[in-house]
Amino acid sequence: MLVDRASLVPALTNVATRLRIDSIKSTSEAGSGHPTSCCSAADLVAALFFGEMRFDPKDPHNPDADRFILSKGHAAPILYAAWAEAGAFDRAELLKLRTIGSDLEGHPTPRLPFVDVATGSLGQGICAALGSAINARRIKSEYRTYVLLGDGESAEGSVWEAANVATADGLDNLCGITDVNALGQSRPTMWQHDMEQFARRWRAFGWHAIVIDGHDLGAILDAYAEARRTKGQPTMILARTLKGKGVSFVEGKDGWHGRAFKKGDELDRALAELEKQFVPTSSGVNLVQHIVKPPSGPRPVVSAKPVSPPAYKMGDHVATREAYGTAIAKLGEADPRVVALDADVKNSTFSEKFEKALPDRFYENFIAEEAMIGAAMGLAARGAIPFPSTFACFLSRAYDFIRMAAISNLSIKMAGSHAGVSIGEDGPSQMALEDLAMCRAQPNLTVLYPCDGVSTERLVALAAYYPGPVYIRTSRPKTPVIYSNDETFSVGGLKVLRESQDDVATVIGAGVTVFEALKAYDQLKASGTSIRVIDLYSVAPVDREALVRAGSATGGRLIAVEDHYVGGGIGDAVAAAVADAGFTVHRLAVREIPRSGKPEELLDRFGISAFHIVEAVRTVPRARPVGVSR
Amino acid sequence: MLVDRASLVPALTNVATRLRIDSIKSTSEAGSGHPTSCCSAADLVAALFFGEMRFDPKDPHNPDADRFILSKGHAAPILYAAWAEAGAFDRAELLKLRTIGSDLEGHPTPRLPFVDVATGSLGQGICAALGSAINARRIKSEYRTYVLLGDGESAEGSVWEAANVATADGLDNLCGITDVNALGQSRPTMWQHDMEQFARRWRAFGWHAIVIDGHDLGAILDAYAEARRTKGQPTMILARTLKGKGVSFVEGKDGWHGRAFKKGDELDRALAELEKQFVPTSSGVNLVQHIVKPPSGPRPVVSAKPVSPPAYKMGDHVATREAYGTAIAKLGEADPRVVALDADVKNSTFSEKFEKALPDRFYENFIAEEAMIGAAMGLAARGAIPFPSTFACFLSRAYDFIRMAAISNLSIKMAGSHAGVSIGEDGPSQMALEDLAMCRAQPNLTVLYPCDGVSTERLVALAAYYPGPVYIRTSRPKTPVIYSNDETFSVGGLKVLRESQDDVATVIGAGVTVFEALKAYDQLKASGTSIRVIDLYSVAPVDREALVRAGSATGGRLIAVEDHYVGGGIGDAVAAAVADAGFTVHRLAVREIPRSGKPEELLDRFGISAFHIVEAVRTVPRARPVGVSR
Repeated sequence: MLVDRASLVPALTNVATRLRIDSIKSTSEAGSGHPTSCCSAADLVAALFFGEMRFDPKDPHNPDADRFILSKGHAAPILYAAWAEAGAFDRAELLKLRTIGSDLEGHPTPRLPFVDVATGSLGQGICAALGSAINARRIKSEYRTYVLLGDGESAEGSVWEAANVATADGLDNLCGITDVNALGQSRPTMWQHDMEQFARRWRAFGWHAIVIDGHDLGAILDAYAEARRTKGQPTMILARTLKGKGVSFVEGKDGWHGRAFKKGDELDRALAELEKQFVPTSSGVNLVQHIVKPPSGPRPVVSAKPVSPPAYKMGDHVATREAYGTAIAKLGEADPRVVALDADVKNSTFSEKFEKALPDRFYENFIAEEAMIGAAMGLAARGAIPFPSTFACFLSRAYDFIRMAAISNLSIKMAGSHAGVSIGEDGPSQMALEDLAMCRAQPNLTVLYPCDGVSTERLVALAAYYPGPVYIRTSRPKTPVIYSNDETFSVGGLKVLRESQDDVATVIGAGVTVFEALKAYDQLKASGTSIRVIDLYSVAPVDREALVRAGSATGGRLIAVEDHYVGGGIGDAVAAAVADAGFTVHRLAVREIPRSGKPEELLDRFGISAFHIVEAVRTVPRARPVGVSR
Repeated sequence: MLVDRASLVPALTNVATRLRIDSIKSTSEAGSGHPTSCCSAADLVAALFFGEMRFDPKDPHNPDADRFILSKGHAAPILYAAWAEAGAFDRAELLKLRTIGSDLEGHPTPRLPFVDVATGSLGQGICAALGSAINARRIKSEYRTYVLLGDGESAEGSVWEAANVATADGLDNLCGITDVNALGQSRPTMWQHDMEQFARRWRAFGWHAIVIDGHDLGAILDAYAEARRTKGQPTMILARTLKGKGVSFVEGKDGWHGRAFKKGDELDRALAELEKQFVPTSSGVNLVQHIVKPPSGPRPVVSAKPVSPPAYKMGDHVATREAYGTAIAKLGEADPRVVALDADVKNSTFSEKFEKALPDRFYENFIAEEAMIGAAMGLAARGAIPFPSTFACFLSRAYDFIRMAAISNLSIKMAGSHAGVSIGEDGPSQMALEDLAMCRAQPNLTVLYPCDGVSTERLVALAAYYPGPVYIRTSRPKTPVIYSNDETFSVGGLKVLRESQDDVATVIGAGVTVFEALKAYDQLKASGTSIRVIDLYSVAPVDREALVRAGSATGGRLIAVEDHYVGGGIGDAVAAAVADAGFTVHRLAVREIPRSGKPEELLDRFGISAFHIVEAVRTVPRARPVGVSR
């Protein structure tokens, strides 16, 4: 920044006033939004964008540009105003806020080139910022990551997960700013303006905490500079602010959250007050021209080497979770963008194989699944290919993050091990039986579910380069290798494992139930009955055409069997795919809360073993004409 | 406790040794489990059960008994051993650990009478303990709540959510104990034995922190007494321990997490060492006889008064979220067990109506959804009927808690407002479009989805007394009242709103899409086409018979329309219900990530408006015979 402090502060004052005016005008035009939450942050944002950050408004994706994540996503209008002020787009666009034709949405999404991750679910931005800061180390860049939080947001546990992990990693390239305006949506916040409450928590968690008046531009600039100089730990700037700052009749007043000023007198009075807050500046100071560009020159293009093929023998027994570890380690060797994250279960998910091979690109998040998925989001947003893993059931801990990753369409590659009742004795708390439902629900989330070592390695490699979020479900028990090492797979594909002209039904399994289906095949075969057996390794999307083909060839008798609850899983996926062809699906799935026991006992007890498949084949009637009054 | 300290400590030493022996024997017999995680906690548990807590081993549900929640659920064997030691059941049962015929599961569940909430997903027990402590105040009981955490567990954000809320509520009847054994599952924990790291965090969060040697029984007893004397704030006892304490060859060693001792030499050596740790005690000291019973006498039976019926006029416009507020306030007036919780959105979910009427039974959790659902679990376990509410999308933040509440079959009554794209301008981050999928997936979770004020009040009242967890989905926009105030509803029911002999299709809506279906009905009627219209207010369970009847009467043409993603929602629910009758379902649902816009624009853009229903009725073919090769 080449502007001297005496010129800078009045210039920033005017920027902040413009940001307030833009935020108020755009929300009033939209008829909704959070102008008072913008006003409290205006000075912080003005000083950050035009007095501190290194970035190129015309090239927001520059790999060495400082990042800014608006964790308090409801203050979106000021984010948009700041980028408009910086020249990224025409200021007139701001008045299209929240309309269906504009990407200036109610809360920020990466439809906008300057947004890394969608925010609006509080407590997530700081987790993504953690990932962004980790990424700077990965690519050996000097860029810094800034994240603006609301004070109410500090109640979210994910904030403290990120705080711990950032401290453990010593991320001094990470700077948080908490806009302490003391008012939540429905009432004053927990600690209101008691700044000591914030400071002692952040310091206890190992951060460098700086308490400032968030409307004192000099203090703000000093705090940013202090953060930049702080080594070995992240910094949290705790800024005491007033909600609605700059508009006397709302400043610091409860009851104004999420309310736009009414057009007419209310809006006019607010704007008139703000207009009077412009101050004289040194002639010729144009802060936009003084924004320091990142020290770039394009970075070398990263290219992946080919991954060596699987190396199993047919019939080898290997758990898909273990094959997952092998797969990501191979991928990581071939592609420097691949990273792995875990939450203190690397010896169960087998991500430890990656750590062993590539310790520098393995990130331990301890038992903090929200921080892990959030960090993966930040890494993915900055070009890494992150594979976060934990027990599949504990991904439910981060479902809100997965939801936001889907909204952001970020290429995170989640792996959940220990799916289903087949884990056995540990009992229901450790069994994922809703993970397929929760992932399938997201319309752009790819769900892959390998059954053996070969398919695991192949699907993991596909996942890495398939656009958008992917979920890979692995199992605890060892299963035999049934595919040859050169077998090929595709997202949206399936494998027909048994097939004849005489098949009376199609049994669709995935993961461990593939082997139950194969056992059922053998038993039925012995008594002269043939069935078709499908390995539905791609659960979302599914291969509709192949399923309809199988249904047509087997009298419309489709039986889905899954180590998952009945709602939202494989049965539902197949049923939705074949509905338009007029086929229904008989579902074998877990229909009650399970319990501890041996894996094979549980498969049987909960209705998804070979025994139940044989039973279903024998009793499910052939499809018959419908539409008849019953 | 009538035993003097000089007699107590050696007696507790021997109890702790027995608990270690039982934990080791039972896990070795099971062939799996976490004996070393039990051994670190043995002295803490022995002193708590037999030197501090007031309870009746034969009446664990006594409303005035102190509560113990094992947040580190993998140490289940020591919990079981402690209750066996106390005489709750025969010690021989311990050897059935983890077998399918025993309720002594791998991790504790409320199948056991002395378990309030299932644990095994770390960081949840303390949230449930928060609810249990709140409940003591509600029923004006002196009981105390104890919760034992692992140190690795402190990385979970939910722990810090609970910490903040407990401090805000000044819950001095809550006592946490952290078993700091320094070793996680896969590696040493974040802070290992650096006790100051723990102490400064808990103190910063407002707790009274006591650091002790977790194997010094005198110090442990003193800490419990100090916690009991501490007023105005909760206490966290931070106990430095050794994982595997008591067995020299595993004590403090990494690599022994979740490993049972091998029967034979390994087990024998461990047991031989422990046997030597018994110490002489004063003759005649029987700690079980000295357990102080709760100061009971049965409490008066709580009975609910009748709830006044809804009082709307047909055609009134009221948002179901607002009717929800009215409903819980009425319920609360009628039944002292009803409580409400919120996460700083009470003015959006309208739980503020409850707060206004019954401020003492309204619990603000600030923006901490995990703590809110966890607290609701603890409250429900102790006899309250809790209604936690937030935006439906933010319930995804607590999905792992919802999963565990389902495993626990706890009667929590969750309400999610702002469902679907019909919220409009706030954009996708605020739209719940996977909440039905995530709730439907749980096999014992009831899902209710009212469309108007009357059905909201009726369904909320049903939810309160229907056993198990319930989810109530409400909407942001105002909708007209279509039911008369005396209309009756049932869990698992539906309403046929339009019906004739000539219906060519059945359109199944719920919530806002009921009104789109009614609009479509009017438009089609005008052109001479009749359709049947169903309000599927009970999404789980669904009324299978009524749906099949409607399908049979309308040529098998079933069209489901929902303000939800296509995977796992109403279309899937209906399809699963009618599959065995041979009917398929045409699904109108949101199939991509939505965006900001006006509600009506979004319903149209994402394919779920009256326009799309009319289109579907006109184009979806009648069901036809299947099983024909295509």
